[in-house]
Order: sequence, then C-alpha cells, then structure tokens
Amino acid sequence: MTQFTAVSDITDPIKLADEALAIKAYPHAQGQLGQNKTMVLLFFNPSLRTRLSTQKAGINLGMSVISMNAAQGWQLEFEDRIIMNTDKAEHIREAAAVVSQYADIIGIRTFPSLTDKEKDYSDFILKRFIEFASVPVISLESAIRHPLQSLADLVTIKEQTAKARPKVVLSWAPHPRALPQAVSNSFIEWMQAADMDLVITHPEGYELEGSFVKDTPVIYDQSKAFEGADFIYTKNWSSYQQYGQILNQDANWTITPEKMALTNNGKFMHCLPVRRNVVVADGVLDGPNSLVIEQANNRTFAAQAVIARMLRHQ
Amino acid sequence: MTQFTAVSDITDPIKLADEALAIKAYPHAQGQLGQNKTMVLLFFNPSLRTRLSTQKAGINLGMSVISMNAAQGWQLEFEDRIIMNTDKAEHIREAAAVVSQYADIIGIRTFPSLTDKEKDYSDFILKRFIEFASVPVISLESAIRHPLQSLADLVTIKEQTAKARPKVVLSWAPHPRALPQAVSNSFIEWMQAADMDLVITHPEGYELEGSFVKDTPVIYDQSKAFEGADFIYTKNWSSYQQYGQILNQDANWTITPEKMALTNNGKFMHCLPVRRNVVVADGVLDGPNSLVIEQANNRTFAAQAVIARMLRHQ
Amino acid sequence: MTQFTAVSDITDPIKLADEALAIKAYPHAQGQLGQNKTMVLLFFNPSLRTRLSTQKAGINLGMSVISMNAAQGWQLEFEDRIIMNTDKAEHIREAAAVVSQYADIIGIRTFPSLTDKEKDYSDFILKRFIEFASVPVISLESAIRHPLQSLADLVTIKEQTAKARPKVVLSWAPHPRALPQAVSNSFIEWMQAADMDLVITHPEGYELEGSFVKDTPVIYDQSKAFEGADFIYTKNWSSYQQYGQILNQDANWTITPEKMALTNNGKFMHCLPVRRNVVVADGVLDGPNSLVIEQANNRTFAAQAVIARMLRHQ
Repeated sequence: MTQFTAVSDITDPIKLADEALAIKAYPHAQGQLGQNKTMVLLFFNPSLRTRLSTQKAGINLGMSVISMNAAQGWQLEFEDRIIMNTDKAEHIREAAAVVSQYADIIGIRTFPSLTDKEKDYSDFILKRFIEFASVPVISLESAIRHPLQSLADLVTIKEQTAKARPKVVLSWAPHPRALPQAVSNSFIEWMQAADMDLVITHPEGYELEGSFVKDTPVIYDQSKAFEGADFIYTKNWSSYQQYGQILNQDANWTITPEKMALTNNGKFMHCLPVRRNVVVADGVLDGPNSLVIEQANNRTFAAQAVIARMLRHQ
Repeated sequence: MTQFTAVSDITDPIKLADEALAIKAYPHAQGQLGQNKTMVLLFFNPSLRTRLSTQKAGINLGMSVISMNAAQGWQLEFEDRIIMNTDKAEHIREAAAVVSQYADIIGIRTFPSLTDKEKDYSDFILKRFIEFASVPVISLESAIRHPLQSLADLVTIKEQTAKARPKVVLSWAPHPRALPQAVSNSFIEWMQAADMDLVITHPEGYELEGSFVKDTPVIYDQSKAFEGADFIYTKNWSSYQQYGQILNQDANWTITPEKMALTNNGKFMHCLPVRRNVVVADGVLDGPNSLVIEQANNRTFAAQAVIARMLRHQ
Repeated sequence: MTQFTAVSDITDPIKLADEALAIKAYPHAQGQLGQNKTMVLLFFNPSLRTRLSTQKAGINLGMSVISMNAAQGWQLEFEDRIIMNTDKAEHIREAAAVVSQYADIIGIRTFPSLTDKEKDYSDFILKRFIEFASVPVISLESAIRHPLQSLADLVTIKEQTAKARPKVVLSWAPHPRALPQAVSNSFIEWMQAADMDLVITHPEGYELEGSFVKDTPVIYDQSKAFEGADFIYTKNWSSYQQYGQILNQDANWTITPEKMALTNNGKFMHCLPVRRNVVVADGVLDGPNSLVIEQANNRTFAAQAVIARMLRHQ
C-alpha cells in the first residue's frame, strides 16, 4: 500500500477493520515492525485526536514519529511553471521530495478552503504531495475525506454488532460554524464499501457530492430515517451546493434522546469534537449508547492497521 | 497514585524526595518501568523547564512522551448543561476522556486568569480534567499550585543540608509583571508537610491565601526574617487580596549579597526564570550559594519519582 | 568536539564528510551510541529540513530528541549587569545552563536581524549560549553560518565526483526577500578548508565579508565564472556592505539551462527552499544534474557524523 487516502486505496475494508481489532487486543505485539523506521506527520491544519492517535500507532509499532506544525511559516506553491516571487517560499515539488528523505511514511493533514469548491474537490494539496513524495503517504484528513476516521468508525461498528448489515444512518446536525464535508463524504464511501445498510438524512440544500452519495438513500425526514437504525452517525457539514454556506441552524435537527428512541436501541456515533446541545443533547452523549469515546480510542488501532500494512510491504 | 496535584496527594513527601535522589544517582536504572507506556503532556500555557524535565523524566523511564501545545485552537467548555454555540469547540468531558485513550499518564499545565479569584482558586481546569480523565494526571502547574517544582525544591534542600529542620525563608521580591501565586502556595504546603522551619516574608498587602499559610510565621521585615536562614527561597507573586494586582515594586525587597549576609551562610533558591537585578542581584545569582541551576536539574528527578510511582501502581 | 559552529571547530572536513558517507551506507549501525542520551533542539527561528534531518540523525544514533520552538514566549536577555525590568523574562546565563541540565547535546538555531551588522556578525546569541551551556552545542544555523548545511554540501560534492579539486562556483541569484549571508559564508569556508577550486560570482555590491572570502576569486561576470564548473552552488543573499538591503533583482542572474550549458556538465546545488524561476529555472531544477534533493538527504548523515563524534568523545 503506497497511499491511504480513500477507501478505494484498499480492496478489503472489512478485513482491514478486523486487523485493527486484532491489534487492539495486543497493541504492542508488532513492536518490532517499525524498528528503525520514521514517520513524519505534517499538520497544515490543527489536530488533536488524529495527531495523538497516529503518533501512538507509530510508537506501538516501534517507529520514531516526528510531528510538525506546518501551518505557519511554510507557504507552499502548488502551481507549475510559475515565477515564485510572492509569498510562497517553497514549491510542493521540493517540499514533498525533501520530507520523503527523512521519512519512511508521511502523514499529512490539510483542510478545504470552503470557498473554492472545484479546487477543494480536486484535493490538490494531498494529491500533489503524493505526486512528488517518494514514500507512502497517509491522509490525516484532506479537503474532502478523512479515511482514518472512517476506518475507526467501521472498526467501532464491527466491534459493537454481530449483524453483517446493520442499519447505519448518517445524520446532519446543526453547528454554528461552517465545517468541511470530509468526514461525511468519507463515512459514506466506507459504509458503502463495507456494504452496510446506509441511509443519509439532512435538510434540503445539504446534498453531498453525487459521486460520494451514489445510490445511497437520502431522506429529508430525520425521524423517518432513524426508524430501526442500529447506529446514528452524526455530523454537521456546510452546504456542498451553495459551497461552504450555512443554510440552516434548525435545532430540530439536534440529536435528542427522543429521536434516539425511534431507533432500534441505536448507538450514537460522532467523530468529535462535538458541540453539546447543538449537535447532540447531553442525554445522548452521556448515555449508555454513546460510542464517541470508543471511536476515539479506535483511531489508534485503525491507524496502526494502516501503518502496519505499509511497513510490511516496504 | 492516581493524581499528583498537591502535597495532599501523597503521605510521605520526605520519602518521595529520597526516591528522587536515588533516581538522580542512577537515572536510567528503571528504564524498563515505562516500556510500552505513553505520557501525553498538554500545555494550555507555555513551558520550558517543566516541559523539558518532564519529557526527560518519562524518557528515562522508557516511556514514549507526546507533548502538545493546546494553547491555540483548543477552546474548551467547562460548564455543564450549556448550549455550545459560541467559540468553545469541545467540552472538557470529551477532551479529558479522549486524551485518556492515548495516554497511560497525562500531564497538564494551566495558568490562572489573575482576574477571577474565586474561579482561579477553584482550580477548575485541572479539577474538571481529572474528573473526566480515566488515567492518572500530573499537574505541570495549575492556577494555584506547582507541585513538581515544590518537590524538586524539597529534593534540593534535602540534598544540600544534613539538618532535619533547616530554617527556610520564602521571600517575596519585586517584579514588573503580575505573576501567579502558584509556586509560593505550593512551596509553603510542601515545606509544612516536610516539617521545615518555614518563615514567610513579604510587604503588607501580599498575604497569601489563608489555607496555604496556616500557622506559618509571616514577617513583614525582610531583614529580620533572613536572620539565621539556611535557605532563602525567593519568588514574586501578585496580590491575593487585591487579586492579581501589583501593589509594590520596591527595589528594597530585591535579594542582594548584603541581605544574604544576614543569613546562616544561606543558600539562594528560585524556580526560574528570574529577572536579574529586579528579583535578585547578579552577585547572589552568580555566587557560590546559588542553587537555581541545581533546582532546575532536580526537576527531572522529582518528575521521575512521581511518574515511577504512578507506573508501579498501575 | 564540544561545539560545532564553524569549519574551524574541526581539523579534518574531508574526513568528517567521509564519516558521513560511511554512515549513509549503514545509518543504523551506531544505534547504541546514543543510548540514554538526550538531544534538545531549540528553534529561535523556523526550521523544516534542519529540524527533520537533525532529529532523524539523533534517532538513528539511538538518542531521544526533544525539539522546542523557542521563538514565542522566550524573550532572552543577553546583556550583563542589566536591570531586567522590561520584556525579557530570562537571562541567557540561566537559559543555557538550565537547558544543559536536560540535554547531553544542544542544537540551537537563530537568524540574524539583518539590521545591526556588527551585532549579527558577533554571532552573540550562539556565542553567549555556548558560553553558559555545560554540554556540547551544535549550530543549526546561526546569524552568520550554517555549518551542518555546508558539511552536507561537502558530502554531496564528494559523493558526486572523483576529482580531488573540482571547480565549484558559488553564484548569487535574485530573490524577492532579504536573506541572510549565513549559508554563503559557511559554504565558502568549508570549500576553502576542503581545498576545492572555489569561485564566487555576484553582482557588484554583494561582496561578502572579507574574512570569509579571503583570497577566493570573485568574478562579477556570472557567465565567465560558470565556464568549466563542475558544481554550481546557488544562493541569494542580501548585501553585506549595505547591510541587509536588496540591491538587485536582476533576472539575468537566474540560473537557467543556458547558463548551465556553459559549465563542464556541472551539477546544480541549492540548500532549499528555492524560488522557482526566480533563483533557478524549472529546467535546471527538474533536470538530471540537479542535486538539491540529495543535498537534503545528506543533511541527515552530516548531522549524524557530527553528533556521533560528540557522543564518542563525551
């Protein structure tokens, strides 16, 4: 595996999730695999969970992990055949090639602008970085996907149910700030690939990009969508069509105990951080069916499964 | 030991200091104790000595240590039953629980506001973090205490004297900025617990909080306080009563060679950083009786003694 | 070796470069040398390559490496006998002594002001730090030199040619920002010490400091300088004489394929980051004779050779 950026980079999401669960049982069993290997994590955007869990994953495998905040002071140029006489001090060609000299695996996080839809959806920062890197690259969240989160989510679902095809509902919820679509896009493609019974629910105007949604049912009636659900996966996103806009902050979309009661004793999932009593009511988050902390825990083992595959095939 | 936040978290300060001195003799003797364990250090406020010494302590014990500056970009909500629709992106409940997934021990540093006395003295950031963390927590300085510093100070005093009950003077000194009372509060409670002959001296108006001072003698005449002292521990703090205010910048309170001459060949101590010729004269700091660098050195072994106890009892 | 700040700190640059090449062949062969040793890297200025490569070098030797951004929040006082009642919270005397308590080797990076020539060229930050440090110090670039870069450059030249005395041209090139002279100064003194056939070319007004240049030929005609060159080492610097000023942005000084054609099939070198089509044309940078990525790679082994010497002689 030379890159991990989308579910299409692997052929067996269920098997990878199983590998993560096996690692969770014995996290240090492969402590020799990363011996004398270095992973460099580049954060063009802030990170807490992803940073800690990916570092931990590397450490568990015996790697040295170097994290760098690249946000400030590393203005990169992505365009070719350009005269670099403005504020961009380094070209992605050199940047990616150079970091590859110091790393056996590179992780990179970058967020969308939420202003230029076409550019964001070309995922150009991640794509161009990979183009010029000479070592395997892991997306630590890109403009349009968050595959390590989605793998951890799949691991969590697998861990919690014996059903081969549980009903999983991705529900939009309100939020005061404009957020990326990355987590939602990614969740959809992983649930599709794992053949879950996925349903999407959101207010009109919040339709996600068609190539992600495909034939997954979209229901505008949240209560109807929740009926019989085994898992409610909640996430806010800003509008894709009116790109980056907040169209709706309707508190009726907040996940409440009443709504959870419509489900099949459904579990509540969220990637965190979460706005309490905006996205989800205290009663749901603090209730016995909340999986949010276990999702965070599983981030380590999801990352570890991915890194282990990369190390084994180097 | 599930937390190290105050002297009251242990029963045997002298024994803990002795453990630190034993570690100082052979810092790598317990290099297996932290095998496969991770310590996460969260800095809500800047740190140099604490960061380096605590990282070093963890490394000496064979741990992996991950440090994170949480200052920017991690606005936490501490209040319960609140609608999180402002600038706080995550609740302390999730934050503490999530970091606990990636750490065997968490260190956390946080400073007081110096504007809201009641809130600062409730030490709410540290307390709420511990409430929701599922692993042992070490204070790397909180709003009102700095226990790792105080333990290092006790280690330094023990190392320097054969007396069971040396005379130790905590002396206020001037400073151009308003500083917390944390180091002083903490020093007092550790000296009391270790049964040192402690005396406090400061200008009127700088009385520290009563539950820290207890029956320790407070003398407003600095020269009188210094008579016969074995150790002069100097620290500026802003007023507790006129909370956070600078009432006095009187250079007569600066520690000078002349004042040190009043002591029993007393040693000079300060937690650093220190303003030269404001808090203390060059002649004292550069003289043979200055212990400030050794105090900094002992920070490593103090932290290591605390972490070792936590690791042994997990 | 107690310091590595200039070529004058060693007696055998060629031998040190050979040691780096031997390390490059087996980077982990000395993985026990740094056992239980800690290197602290202090960055008073931003760093990418230097940070990653020096961390990697330490890790390859089995050290623990702690990197700290000291840029913000650590205002140091360098003057003696001063009343520290302004914005400087700590004196270099304590700062250097304290960090020495936690480190077996310290690396420090600091940039020039480009406004105060005399102060910059006294290299006071690095010099005073070393004065008060009690462990070996490595310059990670100072106001006037970048010795780890120069050693990596020498390693790269040695690796690429069998000639004992290749013709090496240091060529100024335009840049939109005022840059330090450190890389150029340092390159000159290392090439002189390694007895390369060095020629310097730059526009009039860009003369470098005389004690660096010595009797190295300076040619104002770039094309003439390039004739027969085996290596073109390109770097912008701001004026030394009109200190810190940009006197010239003449695109005729940009390194182009046409100019490279004047050389003896010369290799192109640059320390990176580089402004494409300002400093150097795409055609040169992307051509087969560009060594820039290998220079970056050799940073690791250069640093490792230096650190290994320090570790062996402790």
